[in-house]
Amino acid sequence: MIKVGIVGGTGYTGVELLRILAVHPDVQVECITSRSEAGMPVADIYPNLRGHFDLAFSEPEPERLKACDMVFFATPHGVAMRMVPELMDAGVRVVDLSADFRIKDLDVWANWYGMPHESPEWAQKAVYGLPEVARDAISEAQLVANPGCYPTAVQLGFLPLLEQGLVNPDRLIADAKSGASGGGRQGKIGMLHGEVGESFKAYGASGHRHLPEIRQGLVQAAGQACGVTFVPHLVPMVRGIEATLYAELNNAGDFDRLQEVFESRYRSEPFVDVMPFGSHPETRSVRGANQCRMALHRQEQSNMVIVSSVIDNLVKGAAGQAVQNMNIMFGLNEVAGLEAPALLP
Amino acid sequence: MIKVGIVGGTGYTGVELLRILAVHPDVQVECITSRSEAGMPVADIYPNLRGHFDLAFSEPEPERLKACDMVFFATPHGVAMRMVPELMDAGVRVVDLSADFRIKDLDVWANWYGMPHESPEWAQKAVYGLPEVARDAISEAQLVANPGCYPTAVQLGFLPLLEQGLVNPDRLIADAKSGASGGGRQGKIGMLHGEVGESFKAYGASGHRHLPEIRQGLVQAAGQACGVTFVPHLVPMVRGIEATLYAELNNAGDFDRLQEVFESRYRSEPFVDVMPFGSHPETRSVRGANQCRMALHRQEQSNMVIVSSVIDNLVKGAAGQAVQNMNIMFGLNEVAGLEAPALLP
Amino acid sequence: MIKVGIVGGTGYTGVELLRILAVHPDVQVECITSRSEAGMPVADIYPNLRGHFDLAFSEPEPERLKACDMVFFATPHGVAMRMVPELMDAGVRVVDLSADFRIKDLDVWANWYGMPHESPEWAQKAVYGLPEVARDAISEAQLVANPGCYPTAVQLGFLPLLEQGLVNPDRLIADAKSGASGGGRQGKIGMLHGEVGESFKAYGASGHRHLPEIRQGLVQAAGQACGVTFVPHLVPMVRGIEATLYAELNNAGDFDRLQEVFESRYRSEPFVDVMPFGSHPETRSVRGANQCRMALHRQEQSNMVIVSSVIDNLVKGAAGQAVQNMNIMFGLNEVAGLEAPALLP
Amino acid sequence: MIKVGIVGGTGYTGVELLRILAVHPDVQVECITSRSEAGMPVADIYPNLRGHFDLAFSEPEPERLKACDMVFFATPHGVAMRMVPELMDAGVRVVDLSADFRIKDLDVWANWYGMPHESPEWAQKAVYGLPEVARDAISEAQLVANPGCYPTAVQLGFLPLLEQGLVNPDRLIADAKSGASGGGRQGKIGMLHGEVGESFKAYGASGHRHLPEIRQGLVQAAGQACGVTFVPHLVPMVRGIEATLYAELNNAGDFDRLQEVFESRYRSEPFVDVMPFGSHPETRSVRGANQCRMALHRQEQSNMVIVSSVIDNLVKGAAGQAVQNMNIMFGLNEVAGLEAPALLP
Repeated sequence: MIKVGIVGGTGYTGVELLRILAVHPDVQVECITSRSEAGMPVADIYPNLRGHFDLAFSEPEPERLKACDMVFFATPHGVAMRMVPELMDAGVRVVDLSADFRIKDLDVWANWYGMPHESPEWAQKAVYGLPEVARDAISEAQLVANPGCYPTAVQLGFLPLLEQGLVNPDRLIADAKSGASGGGRQGKIGMLHGEVGESFKAYGASGHRHLPEIRQGLVQAAGQACGVTFVPHLVPMVRGIEATLYAELNNAGDFDRLQEVFESRYRSEPFVDVMPFGSHPETRSVRGANQCRMALHRQEQSNMVIVSSVIDNLVKGAAGQAVQNMNIMFGLNEVAGLEAPALLP
Repeated sequence: MIKVGIVGGTGYTGVELLRILAVHPDVQVECITSRSEAGMPVADIYPNLRGHFDLAFSEPEPERLKACDMVFFATPHGVAMRMVPELMDAGVRVVDLSADFRIKDLDVWANWYGMPHESPEWAQKAVYGLPEVARDAISEAQLVANPGCYPTAVQLGFLPLLEQGLVNPDRLIADAKSGASGGGRQGKIGMLHGEVGESFKAYGASGHRHLPEIRQGLVQAAGQACGVTFVPHLVPMVRGIEATLYAELNNAGDFDRLQEVFESRYRSEPFVDVMPFGSHPETRSVRGANQCRMALHRQEQSNMVIVSSVIDNLVKGAAGQAVQNMNIMFGLNEVAGLEAPALLP
Repeated sequence: MIKVGIVGGTGYTGVELLRILAVHPDVQVECITSRSEAGMPVADIYPNLRGHFDLAFSEPEPERLKACDMVFFATPHGVAMRMVPELMDAGVRVVDLSADFRIKDLDVWANWYGMPHESPEWAQKAVYGLPEVARDAISEAQLVANPGCYPTAVQLGFLPLLEQGLVNPDRLIADAKSGASGGGRQGKIGMLHGEVGESFKAYGASGHRHLPEIRQGLVQAAGQACGVTFVPHLVPMVRGIEATLYAELNNAGDFDRLQEVFESRYRSEPFVDVMPFGSHPETRSVRGANQCRMALHRQEQSNMVIVSSVIDNLVKGAAGQAVQNMNIMFGLNEVAGLEAPALLP
Repeated sequence: MIKVGIVGGTGYTGVELLRILAVHPDVQVECITSRSEAGMPVADIYPNLRGHFDLAFSEPEPERLKACDMVFFATPHGVAMRMVPELMDAGVRVVDLSADFRIKDLDVWANWYGMPHESPEWAQKAVYGLPEVARDAISEAQLVANPGCYPTAVQLGFLPLLEQGLVNPDRLIADAKSGASGGGRQGKIGMLHGEVGESFKAYGASGHRHLPEIRQGLVQAAGQACGVTFVPHLVPMVRGIEATLYAELNNAGDFDRLQEVFESRYRSEPFVDVMPFGSHPETRSVRGANQCRMALHRQEQSNMVIVSSVIDNLVKGAAGQAVQNMNIMFGLNEVAGLEAPALLP
């Protein structure tokens, strides 16, 4: 059994890690930390876990974490970069669900996250944990930077197009929509039900932290500079991301083989589902599941490729992908703990 | 492996059965029938099942059903009572999720369901499948009538009070609230999102079909006549039932031991969770899980016992309880396929 | 034109007052105060008011308020009781939407609100502003205590029964459900969309501040002691309250005339609508409107009267009723500013 | 008083017309027709109208309609084109809220709506009723084709850019999102709360009927051919449309004057609100109001203009705009009946 620790367990990604690990056959959760809730039984905050875990939140003590085989960080940005080096020295493997190790250009990171990076060495060594791109590197990594929720949905949808050089990389548009759990579990007025409920809006339209992360991944796939516009929106629901992606096909004749390009790209991927051409993936079709579903569209004779891509922001966009990465890192069955179908309706 | 058939699979209880059986270790789904969708792959209607089932809906042919070990009916009322006798003769075991076999008094049944009962013999032989009450009988039954959603939440909350004779059985009130999936998957205007969304109302307040079923169960528990008022309400959400129950304690001094009465009653039940006195169970704490959570309340020095009881109407209120019943009937581990925590948030 | 001031305008009742007063023909809003947002244009927080008000929030300066004819308090409890006496001395008329002047028994008030009352004199002089009960007193009052949201829905539904002595006052049950805007506009984790969305629960089931207010009103109507149980619930929607009320008819034969009793009681009330017997009022039928709709139900031959009563918690349950009270106090048309139909769907 | 008739009143645009006309000072609703509900009081289907209208639905008799000054069609497509010519001959003025008279190219119309057009003469004479573009023509029109909901939000957002020739008209993208009331009030399974609730998806991504209408308007504004991609999405809420629009600025230096271009364009428009640069319009800020709010965004140094535009699909996207058109046609105050602020929260 792999001994697991979770740092920062009171947020939505923390409870989601526990929900998934509760049915994982190869894992034992040793500790889950929270400064603010130390001593509180986990199930008192998350009653869905009653009967599944006897754990209480504990102070984040390095010694307990160093006794684990695997530590997940489910913390705000700025925490993992301070604690990770000590765990690395102790030989612990880490998946960081925060943004600390996702961006290789630390000036860009510092600019978007408003603080200097404190662990530049590990920022370079960390493997960006999108298994569909970096499975081999992940399997050997000690530190994996778990991708952001929007970047997962957007990159998976664009990758086949960019890797094959099929579209103009200068004019990529990602119009993405997320449920409110993406905003986290802090007492912010803007995230109240009274503010979010029964309304829809764009936010961060002049620039969002996930933009540089998306661009970094697309540039790597395209092998050249990319111009990408990314606008997130807030949907009055709890879970789910849909990203509608727009790209101009270089050669309109390629439309005939696009479906096959996507299916080939993801045929062996357990968690990416290319639906039939012209389908409309629904976020509920992946609710609670570590799955990305996507489908392609064309309007009349346009050369604009439209990709609709959906994930559960807390699963394939966070905790599920983190467990998938752990499974790869430890040579487990990649789908262990992640096999249940989504909850629909 | 138990060979399972599902009759009437296009509704919400049908897809929920498949979702649960997809991770059940001892079951093989052989066929799922639908007259209207025969030939259509199940995953085309329910994309959450893509990759989990290759099945297509088929016509409800008796021969295929008779080749199963176990058949679930997820049909409107009036269907199972016509098909069950033939399956009984063939030795197939059946859990009927519809209302056909729930009520023992067939005049009452005919009155509420608007048709004469066509299988009075099996209506008497059927075991009412509330495992917390009738586990032994279920284990030996060939035909189990799976309880309704509201009746499950209401009965489980009242049972300890009535079995112990602690409250006045003449004045029981059950104020219950359900998400819209309880209304089924037919194209009814009243169940449109445009009608249900962002609104709340009572319905069936002058009389609902679940009232006689609830009364039958409470009378059995109390061993005497019961006066029960039951008002259901429609909540603008998809899944979940909460029932707030009111009963007058015969002896106000018994309040001191009520919590212990409830905890004792359900201590060995895998799917009933008595929360601490004064807790407020949330429907999301059981979303997707075969669980009933409940808690007790008292206001000032009143002798009114308040019980709040929550279930997922599609799981402990339908498909989950049906699988629990199947597990009991076949001597399997009662929790097989039903172990995952609820999806929260 | 009546010069109006609003104290504490950043909450949901504040914006709702402005929305209603924007179309009121006889009113000019002079100032709206907020310590935390002083200087901020109102329309920056509430963009629905862009083009309707040029006002900015201001510090709560007594001199500006004393220059008004009418001041609304839309503040947390504890504020109005400190500021009102000075306004009373200045001859200003006040409608207090907070709880400060609703309860006549100040020991009870202090117990539920956790502080001693600082204006006992005005607590006694204040008129409890339920126009359907106290229209004449309101018309002459200088200080009106605007009823709470739940108490409005519950009292209006019970009043005809208690005033006529038709039911047993010892066993009144009010099972009430509210949208999330009732929780106010503070950054509380429990009111996040991620917590409230797609879930349902009871809260305050062991005792809620509106219980003593409800009891006070019911006792007055019944002319004797009342035993009332009140359980509020949180609905995943923004606006609306539904209360399902249960009372035992003393004489079952009275069921035949109940509908007429209710219709007579409210025939001349502009804002109470008695729907046909057996109807199911929906909260959306009063969304945005200063209306209470209610309907009666009976189950089989029971002597239990069931009343379902709906209001918009922010309108008839707060700002609309406050404007109705102002209209009465100033001898205006009682429906001025309150005539638009509800927003459905 | 203008005598108004409404044809096809049982849908959401029908009830919305009544809600608005209930407070219109210059209008008397004479009749509202519905074949399916003839004889049923309007308020029985739409309880928000109780106390506002005594009308019952009637059969659509030409004589009663011809006795009106003004008739609104709130019918499915294919109805108005058959009934309008007779009303035109009788001198009645008509606003058609359906799609029958929106498209000038009748081959295109027939292709998208699946039937030949039966009134080609009036299809050419009809004025497309976007007041911000065609106010003068509307004022003299006998027949106004009320714009679709998406086309209103999309055209208003793109117009200033295209009219000034500021962007490349070949690559316009409109990613639009709508609440479920846009799907109408028919009993379609796909629009059940159980299907729509707590989920998000694109639909019609390979081609939607509003695409040719949008293109027609944009071509007119640009004075040249336009390449436009339009993808609608379904939001789990009742009302509201948000459109996020993407266009490439021909000259990146023009970004400095874009805000002024938009503000100038709409300065005298009572129902278009250009918010400060970088704002995020929310659909709730226009709920129930005949308003379009929009804001501009730029990401880093990109030459991509981003416009976010919101309307209430039933108001500025349907019934409100229809009343605005009527006001213009009859020389009334353009804002009559349309002055109330939006309902927020």
